[in-house]
Amino acid sequence: MGKGRLEAFSDGVIAVIITIMVLELKVPRGARLDDLLELGPVFFSYVLSFIYVGIYWNNHHHMLHTIQRVTGTILWANLHLLFWLSLVPFTTGWMAENHFATWPTFAYGLVLLLAAISYWLLQTCVIQTHGADSLLARAVGADLKGKLSPVLYVTAIGLGFVATWLALAIYVLVALIWLIPDRRIEKLVGRGKAD
Amino acid sequence: MGKGRLEAFSDGVIAVIITIMVLELKVPRGARLDDLLELGPVFFSYVLSFIYVGIYWNNHHHMLHTIQRVTGTILWANLHLLFWLSLVPFTTGWMAENHFATWPTFAYGLVLLLAAISYWLLQTCVIQTHGADSLLARAVGADLKGKLSPVLYVTAIGLGFVATWLALAIYVLVALIWLIPDRRIEKLVGRGKAD
Amino acid sequence: MGKGRLEAFSDGVIAVIITIMVLELKVPRGARLDDLLELGPVFFSYVLSFIYVGIYWNNHHHMLHTIQRVTGTILWANLHLLFWLSLVPFTTGWMAENHFATWPTFAYGLVLLLAAISYWLLQTCVIQTHGADSLLARAVGADLKGKLSPVLYVTAIGLGFVATWLALAIYVLVALIWLIPDRRIEKLVGRGKAD
Amino acid sequence: MGKGRLEAFSDGVIAVIITIMVLELKVPRGARLDDLLELGPVFFSYVLSFIYVGIYWNNHHHMLHTIQRVTGTILWANLHLLFWLSLVPFTTGWMAENHFATWPTFAYGLVLLLAAISYWLLQTCVIQTHGADSLLARAVGADLKGKLSPVLYVTAIGLGFVATWLALAIYVLVALIWLIPDRRIEKLVGRGKAD
Repeated sequence: MGKGRLEAFSDGVIAVIITIMVLELKVPRGARLDDLLELGPVFFSYVLSFIYVGIYWNNHHHMLHTIQRVTGTILWANLHLLFWLSLVPFTTGWMAENHFATWPTFAYGLVLLLAAISYWLLQTCVIQTHGADSLLARAVGADLKGKLSPVLYVTAIGLGFVATWLALAIYVLVALIWLIPDRRIEKLVGRGKAD
Repeated sequence: MGKGRLEAFSDGVIAVIITIMVLELKVPRGARLDDLLELGPVFFSYVLSFIYVGIYWNNHHHMLHTIQRVTGTILWANLHLLFWLSLVPFTTGWMAENHFATWPTFAYGLVLLLAAISYWLLQTCVIQTHGADSLLARAVGADLKGKLSPVLYVTAIGLGFVATWLALAIYVLVALIWLIPDRRIEKLVGRGKAD
Repeated sequence: MGKGRLEAFSDGVIAVIITIMVLELKVPRGARLDDLLELGPVFFSYVLSFIYVGIYWNNHHHMLHTIQRVTGTILWANLHLLFWLSLVPFTTGWMAENHFATWPTFAYGLVLLLAAISYWLLQTCVIQTHGADSLLARAVGADLKGKLSPVLYVTAIGLGFVATWLALAIYVLVALIWLIPDRRIEKLVGRGKAD
Repeated sequence: MGKGRLEAFSDGVIAVIITIMVLELKVPRGARLDDLLELGPVFFSYVLSFIYVGIYWNNHHHMLHTIQRVTGTILWANLHLLFWLSLVPFTTGWMAENHFATWPTFAYGLVLLLAAISYWLLQTCVIQTHGADSLLARAVGADLKGKLSPVLYVTAIGLGFVATWLALAIYVLVALIWLIPDRRIEKLVGRGKAD
């Protein structure tokens, strides 16, 4: 069974998710610069979520690249990942419109955590189907980032009840961990999950 | 005539359907936990419809996998299925915002019933085009699930006028029938429609 | 230069167009059957526009099937067609919410007319690129339907100022002309544009 | 690593961007011709942005056509371009609803400028990966248009504070520069970025 449609459908869903997030950037009533600047928190949240969804798309791209057989379990594990990603526009909007209040920031992190877990589940399904010697299994290796991220999300969720900026700082940190060092360290540490 | 675009277009439509459903999850005004918990019925409906659309995508994926020739009749039977699926976000939203009142729950089931019938029509078209010995005809076999589902939907629609939770319980049951036993029983019963 | 992305992009745009039309089917406030029945005009308009966009997708599918070379002119003629199709959700919504008042019904027909013209332009570009002996040139042949449709649209637009139901009847008629006889007459008349 | 999914995902995102812009064309309450004509500025903005996104899709189509290797840097440079393009519906809506007031017109140009810069960055990444002798490097050549556009955007943004119609005139001019002469001059000047 081919993986073409699995890729196409996932691409479609992720493309719509990443694009409808911009609908949360509601057109301000006024035409002054202040009306635009008031959107600062919404814009920041949009950028952060765009990067997160972009990271997932990149990682998903690389993971599916190694797949040879698509089973029913993989199809559902993939839909499960897409489900949690589909909630990102909602939590982004709730967090942004309430200027990073405690519960919305908690919900934002919870959805990130569940998306990370569902990504790990999908990866595990793929590795089980393809064997411990498969390309993905070797590429993932120790999967430091994949193991570190959930720990950081849980920490962020907890610290968010002390001060939400701490949670936000950790959300930004996790995004940076996936974004930046990937290219530099990739040849040293071997190839992590994201490439 | 190739089936590539039929798959791509169906993937696109189903991806947008599954994603715009999340727009019904409207961002709450308040930032308290209660504001989130009030979305319970909407969230439950979203999960249920996400699973239903996911089941249709999986089944559609498998059905088209067996297709070799695409005729004008198949193109229109496919658009007919996509039409009823495109109404799922509407009935999901109506049912959820009215907390499972009688008529919205009726409409939700009616659209599920019509989607099931249009799926069966598409399947029949494909089998007629490809012959009774075709891969799909053998794979579908007795098609117990495909015959049971409409009966259950009609039952649910009727019982919904007695108590809507009965209808909902049956909608959940049908989703589970398609989701769960597929993988376990598939090797015993032969291969059902969903795989 | 390949036609794969031209198809993929067109599929994407048409899939989103056909799906966001359902956003016009706004969830009613009330939960009674009457609240649903009040959506009658909106639902009728949605069905009509769904069929029209479906016809365009089918025809587009068949036309691109015959293409071998994609030029810059074809890319822009295609975008021009997608532009007018992208206005269908707008005119559908305006016509439906005003219960088929004169000007919205006029606008609906005007967009259909302009889409038909832009389709004809795209077809002409493709034939010019591929030559009068090309598969498409022979398949289109006399192109009775393609020539009749604009005449009917103009008639409908004019008659709409006498009585809007006349315009609507013609819009339905044109859709039926493209939908129904295609499959029956196709072997007699040779292959028309729609197949 | 294949470029198929990079194309498919970009197509999906651009298709959604170009289509959700039409959601800014809000259905007017009234049914008179005046209600439609009042949408003039919104319609003009929609046409302009549709053309801009169409130009980007065309150019992107041609650029990716020359790609042989996809690196992590290219994936992120591509997402960066999609990010700025995803803001076009927002700035289009803000500019249109405020009838081309100063700051919204400034924001519209700023996003166009940043999209142009991110396109140039993506092009530079691709050329660096594929070498100065690559097909793209030769096709781009002196890249007059690519260098002229940012200069014109900056000029427009500045002049917009004097009179917004000057900024708008330049936005229209840049769109025409990319649209019109491409096909005529392409054989004389060699092949520019847009083809």
